Amino acid sequence: MSDPRALHELSVAEAGARLRSGALTSAELTRYTLERIAALNPTLRAFVTVTEERALKDADRADHELASGLDRGPLHGIPYALKDIFDTRGIRTTSHSWLMAEHVPDEDAEVESRLRAGGGVLVGKLATHEFALGGPSPELPFPPARNPWNTEHFTGASSSGAGAAVAAGLVRVAIGSDTSGSVRGPACHCGTVGLKPTYGLVSRRGAFPLSYALDHIGPLGWTVADTALATQVIAGHDPLDPGSVRRPVPDLVAGLGQGVRGLRIAYSPGWFRDDPATSPEVTAAIERVLAELGESGALVDEVELPPYGRFNACGRVIMAAEAYAIHEAELRRRPTAYGRYTYQRIAPAAGLSAADLVQALRLRQELADAVQRIVFDRYDVLVTATGLSPAPRLDAFPTDWPPPRELTAMQTIPFNVTGHPALALPTGLSGTGLPLGMQIAGRAFDEATVLRVGAAVEAITGHAARRPAAVPRPA
Amino acid sequence: MSDPRALHELSVAEAGARLRSGALTSAELTRYTLERIAALNPTLRAFVTVTEERALKDADRADHELASGLDRGPLHGIPYALKDIFDTRGIRTTSHSWLMAEHVPDEDAEVESRLRAGGGVLVGKLATHEFALGGPSPELPFPPARNPWNTEHFTGASSSGAGAAVAAGLVRVAIGSDTSGSVRGPACHCGTVGLKPTYGLVSRRGAFPLSYALDHIGPLGWTVADTALATQVIAGHDPLDPGSVRRPVPDLVAGLGQGVRGLRIAYSPGWFRDDPATSPEVTAAIERVLAELGESGALVDEVELPPYGRFNACGRVIMAAEAYAIHEAELRRRPTAYGRYTYQRIAPAAGLSAADLVQALRLRQELADAVQRIVFDRYDVLVTATGLSPAPRLDAFPTDWPPPRELTAMQTIPFNVTGHPALALPTGLSGTGLPLGMQIAGRAFDEATVLRVGAAVEAITGHAARRPAAVPRPA
Repeated sequence: MSDPRALHELSVAEAGARLRSGALTSAELTRYTLERIAALNPTLRAFVTVTEERALKDADRADHELASGLDRGPLHGIPYALKDIFDTRGIRTTSHSWLMAEHVPDEDAEVESRLRAGGGVLVGKLATHEFALGGPSPELPFPPARNPWNTEHFTGASSSGAGAAVAAGLVRVAIGSDTSGSVRGPACHCGTVGLKPTYGLVSRRGAFPLSYALDHIGPLGWTVADTALATQVIAGHDPLDPGSVRRPVPDLVAGLGQGVRGLRIAYSPGWFRDDPATSPEVTAAIERVLAELGESGALVDEVELPPYGRFNACGRVIMAAEAYAIHEAELRRRPTAYGRYTYQRIAPAAGLSAADLVQALRLRQELADAVQRIVFDRYDVLVTATGLSPAPRLDAFPTDWPPPRELTAMQTIPFNVTGHPALALPTGLSGTGLPLGMQIAGRAFDEATVLRVGAAVEAITGHAARRPAAVPRPA
Repeated sequence: MSDPRALHELSVAEAGARLRSGALTSAELTRYTLERIAALNPTLRAFVTVTEERALKDADRADHELASGLDRGPLHGIPYALKDIFDTRGIRTTSHSWLMAEHVPDEDAEVESRLRAGGGVLVGKLATHEFALGGPSPELPFPPARNPWNTEHFTGASSSGAGAAVAAGLVRVAIGSDTSGSVRGPACHCGTVGLKPTYGLVSRRGAFPLSYALDHIGPLGWTVADTALATQVIAGHDPLDPGSVRRPVPDLVAGLGQGVRGLRIAYSPGWFRDDPATSPEVTAAIERVLAELGESGALVDEVELPPYGRFNACGRVIMAAEAYAIHEAELRRRPTAYGRYTYQRIAPAAGLSAADLVQALRLRQELADAVQRIVFDRYDVLVTATGLSPAPRLDAFPTDWPPPRELTAMQTIPFNVTGHPALALPTGLSGTGLPLGMQIAGRAFDEATVLRVGAAVEAITGHAARRPAAVPRPA
């Protein structure tokens, strides 16, 4: 083969073409993947469970199916991994918590069922923060995942293993969850693409819940196209998931590569540009990208949205109230089994009143309406920041909670509050060699346009051709 | 004119035809209406404010417009009235409470704006229970409305003046609000038609809120067609009402008279048939109607839904939490200004936790999904009871809250919880001469089918030809 690239550098579509041409088997790709995980995971701590035996068996089946003419679609024969909050039948699913360390589910989460039905090859379960909520905390059953761009640095948020695994090329796509930014944060800090789809597009059944109103399931991928393909496979109505929306899923891939000519882009710098927590590199990179989108024929306008702090306050109250409702019984029964961060974030919500939550839910509706009116009545997408600065060092996290805001300054929660789809993707690297990112939100259920703009940004930045050159070992 | 009927016996369409032919003027109809209100309201207490001067002026304008060729639609020139929770610019809007007794709004509620734009003639504001919540309570600024079929009896729920006014022929249509059944309850006990539309179809802006999640605005009318016309005028997206849904309003009138052949009707007797609070007359009348619908070509099946008590518990928690959030500040400032029933219903919700509300909202979604799956995936409408027995006597209400369940046993709240449209309409009269009722729920935003079935029921029962023969005076 004349292509000098390693297998982990192939896109899902490229790998898929080789599988279908017979140039590659899923078994070969899967063995390569397992070897790469074995080599790098001791440093990265992206996986908490590697499902080697199951993966090899599934890869063989995928090969036999393809050979016999059964093609299950774009992920057929492709290795993937799941954040360890997704139930996997017969495979330990821990939510990265001592409380669930022995939990082996009887059924698959709906996204796992869809990925299996799509011919994907599960290679393992990924590190998170405890119950997708806590932080990088030393007293949990597994160590925190590390950032492949610099393993001394934070991965961004709770789909931490997913960000690390995709950035390091351990898998092309991984499924995470995003309640206040846990898909988009790791995508931002690890320099991958990550999509939080519209509320209700992807079933949450069998994913350990954090907040019914704010939880979203979404993929991280190395490229926009990989991310679009993974979304296409996991999306769709699930009558058994309260909140799942009954509507057809549009083609998310067809529009990639169509460019941005004629699209109307709203830009909201008011949330971050003058915030002292914002690195000027973040703003400059976003505005460079916007200038190029304008030159490519998009109309770009600045808009003024309600202050970021209102979205954040609203989302934090809802998340705290729902997390407390979910964990109340276990918090009373086994308070010391929770990690320190998790406990400290959930327990105070015992004091929230129903009236507090009513006001937050009311504000949520007002904010969603404001975003619709100010942005989506007139613009196709909204561009803003993801993280306000590059990933902080892991050792900057204090041993006493809470960490200073600078360590976790992601402006992702507004779209958990409003439910609009939002894509995080890289804009380049900081002077210190860490990824910088931006965020593209869109109309409800219009992931296709969000991804289309994302593909144009990807072409502008050329980031997908970069990789963390070597995964450095900790000193 | 050879038609021997009095003007209050004409349907909206019939009166409209006369207005357009020149056989009747809106000024004549309005004067007749004001005289009838003056004669009967001292007994019925349906109106708390009569807007005589404004009504006569609006009627003159309506006549001039029609004469000059400007036709504002089906309610042009037709008198109507509003429950006194709807803001009316320059007209006192009390919510039947001492707290608002002097309140004169600067702006109209959205439904009032739409009715005015439709050429309607506002003749006054209607009695309610305090803030659409309390009960028939003696210490409020106005006495309770009385049931025209027997003025010693209760009107059914908080759109009490609306039920009394429509039943007594003071107006053909009145606008009420329905949080747990306050349109459908008065419709049931007063023998009128009442529609709670789909959540989000009719704007709530400018209506004093009781529960953001459960409040619905809807009309009471003497016939299904009158009710459909009023709904058509008030429905439509309002970007300034959080919760208002952006979708076109279908034609609600075209399908009336098409009959029920081929429609699939689900019947849920499990909620009430074996309940000791249910009058056998209620069940028998519903089942007679269903048998006739079956003979008219509808398919009727019994279905089993989650128990009524789950819907009720869920709705009560949400309503209490939201009412408390809305009234919290005034409850602290002026607790004694509230009526006893109102205070006793709202104040205990201070003790509800955010986690309680989370669980109720979660249950709400589950129940809505269950109704969708069990009923609306397979059936066009769902038939059930409205009130479980005829209207109780007003003097049966105890002076100490709460009244026994038998006094207020309405099975209306399930569709506030799920948001489905629900129509209350009469099935006949009890042995004691009081109205009996049924309820027809439908798919979200499919009011047209609900009203179509309602029109068929109306043709079967012949109830619209009846009237409270004379409005008796209290002893």
